[in-house]
Amino acid sequence: MKAEIIAVGTELLMGETQDTNSSWIGSRLPALGLELEWVTIVGDDLDRVAEIIERAWRRSDVVLTIGGLGPTMDDLTRDGIAKTLGEDITTDPALEAWLEESFARRNITPMPAQNIRQAGIIPSAASMPNTMGTAPAWWIERDGKMLATMPGPPREMMNMWNTQVMPRLKERIPGQIIMSRMFKTIGLSEAAVDELVGDVYDLDGMELGVYAKPDGIYVRAIAKADTEAEALTTLMGAEEKIRGTLADYIWGTDEDDPSARIGELLNLHKAHVAVMESCTGGMVGSAITDIDGSSDYFIGGAITYSVPMKVQAGVDARTIAKFGVYSLQTAEAMAQAAQQTFNAEYAIGVTGVAGSADVAGENGLPDIKAGTVFIAVATPEGVSAQEYHFPSRRPLVRNRATTAALLQLAQALK
Amino acid sequence: MKAEIIAVGTELLMGETQDTNSSWIGSRLPALGLELEWVTIVGDDLDRVAEIIERAWRRSDVVLTIGGLGPTMDDLTRDGIAKTLGEDITTDPALEAWLEESFARRNITPMPAQNIRQAGIIPSAASMPNTMGTAPAWWIERDGKMLATMPGPPREMMNMWNTQVMPRLKERIPGQIIMSRMFKTIGLSEAAVDELVGDVYDLDGMELGVYAKPDGIYVRAIAKADTEAEALTTLMGAEEKIRGTLADYIWGTDEDDPSARIGELLNLHKAHVAVMESCTGGMVGSAITDIDGSSDYFIGGAITYSVPMKVQAGVDARTIAKFGVYSLQTAEAMAQAAQQTFNAEYAIGVTGVAGSADVAGENGLPDIKAGTVFIAVATPEGVSAQEYHFPSRRPLVRNRATTAALLQLAQALK
Repeated sequence: MKAEIIAVGTELLMGETQDTNSSWIGSRLPALGLELEWVTIVGDDLDRVAEIIERAWRRSDVVLTIGGLGPTMDDLTRDGIAKTLGEDITTDPALEAWLEESFARRNITPMPAQNIRQAGIIPSAASMPNTMGTAPAWWIERDGKMLATMPGPPREMMNMWNTQVMPRLKERIPGQIIMSRMFKTIGLSEAAVDELVGDVYDLDGMELGVYAKPDGIYVRAIAKADTEAEALTTLMGAEEKIRGTLADYIWGTDEDDPSARIGELLNLHKAHVAVMESCTGGMVGSAITDIDGSSDYFIGGAITYSVPMKVQAGVDARTIAKFGVYSLQTAEAMAQAAQQTFNAEYAIGVTGVAGSADVAGENGLPDIKAGTVFIAVATPEGVSAQEYHFPSRRPLVRNRATTAALLQLAQALK
Repeated sequence: MKAEIIAVGTELLMGETQDTNSSWIGSRLPALGLELEWVTIVGDDLDRVAEIIERAWRRSDVVLTIGGLGPTMDDLTRDGIAKTLGEDITTDPALEAWLEESFARRNITPMPAQNIRQAGIIPSAASMPNTMGTAPAWWIERDGKMLATMPGPPREMMNMWNTQVMPRLKERIPGQIIMSRMFKTIGLSEAAVDELVGDVYDLDGMELGVYAKPDGIYVRAIAKADTEAEALTTLMGAEEKIRGTLADYIWGTDEDDPSARIGELLNLHKAHVAVMESCTGGMVGSAITDIDGSSDYFIGGAITYSVPMKVQAGVDARTIAKFGVYSLQTAEAMAQAAQQTFNAEYAIGVTGVAGSADVAGENGLPDIKAGTVFIAVATPEGVSAQEYHFPSRRPLVRNRATTAALLQLAQALK
């Protein structure tokens, strides 16, 4: 079935606010058996809003609107739909009561007069409650088509999708079963991943996509079939092949997140981690502390952006002199120094070249290519380090090194 | 004049790749006197690509396409335009020679056969060179309309816009002069900023927008007039009012970036900075080291996520006991400890509550609300700290605190 998204709001056209909602919804439609054919961004203008709703209603089976549900005269999605469907908006007493109550709860009485617009509804629409804001949404089924409105603020939109829109669509869309899985890899180039999974492209009923992300290369496998069993078989066949060739380069699937993962593992082991980071400049610590509650297992660490800082933080100056500041040995010494100095069971050491220029080796040491990063993890059992070669663009090197460091720790904790 | 953007690519509809190009272009159109009315994302399907190009050509004055210029049979923008305009694509010998040369330079001979598609052109199009990829673009003027194609990869697109498309549009669009300026603030809520700049909304020929960003609240002022002098007068009048009311809350304008700014200032002073951060967990160090060459002025620092770590890093335990770990005094002690321990002329100390729950005060200390952050900057002349109250959502608190810390340092360096 054909789906279409309409995002409403002049701020989206001014480039001030990026429309991230459409892409979020877009990634969730294939699993429902919906093919997204169009995304349109339109400003707060009644004629244009009505024009695109009218066109979408004609050419698509499922129309999803995002935004334009606020209380002001600039919020025109409701009016555009009413105009297209030739129905009149009337105030729904139940919605009005709910709105008044929700303002009263926030000690705003009386409710601002303009908010009454949000209690408006047309005969063929059912109301969907918004538990995170004042904008109730509409669910419409007519003429064999479906239309759902959703509020614009991303948190409200996601909540409306998860609790109201997605369940309704799931119930009503027959036919083809679509199952998908995302494989997240690190350490290979996009071209290398693409080549390694080449076989999978040819599997019947399988669609494959390879995508470069800040934290590595992702492979999305989508299986389509008439029955759930068939789709599952196809997907499992693909997974076997993908895991066979990408093997240890795969670090997770679907919603897996390295920061959350190491948090769970450290809590499980009742253990703590410290860091000593150079080229990542604080990003590893920052990623670990993205997680609420990370103070239970993160002690802290040192950002050692210079050689004297590394020595001061406990790295033996002779190690740096002998093997170079960019080396497996220095990374190991950094992890061990962090482990001891900061009194943690586990520690991460990161050193490498994030800049775009190669670094010439001095005193007989080898040259180090831009994008080369050495990462060590110290555990109660010992220390080990790995060498990585990332695409030599500063943000990529730093992001990928951060992910690799967290994954190496997760590996050690398993 | 009315503008319209068409972004072509199935990957944009699958939600795997976010279309950031449209928003980037969108923010640059008002200054050219162009009003963006529509953004459409369409997949790699000839009928649909042709359908939207045809509609755009009819309803808009300037049509900008992004993507679909690659060499494969899936790259259909050229074909869609040819179909709409009823013209035939032929191979341009000059383009063909250029393409072959650019492959030869990369030691790929002969050129892959399919790349010949990229040398195709229609009679009413002029070719625009792509200095960053193999996809030349088209510039079309016909029937009083303009159409430009641009490649999809953001770096190539930006380069094509800056060097080819934007200059052509500037030359050809008459009439209204539009000038704009972005004011970046921190420390006030969106509602507070909106209220403070209320007067400016009423200025003749002025449009105002207030936007919440991760690093603070932005105000965009856009002046429209018939002459440059008039637009400038309006904009300067608005700026005076804005600076009058927002005063010290404004930390920069337009492309200003705190990390780059402190880099320039530290280089100017030939000075160095170190950090000691708690709730930001490494983000301040990470932001400073976003800049290539930051090793010239960034020494490093400590991530002190626990009280023992703070004490180990040189903070007097009695200061923490007396004033609390979340206090101006502890922030100051952190900055001073970093300054001394790491031997830097300047240092930043950050402590606060990033989580979403308030922290109860112990031993007679006051409760600390979620979102409260204390930031200190130590200089050769002394140390001073400020208290901030950010919206109590973890990513916002951490991002805004990081920006505030950099800005406080910039202020001290001035």
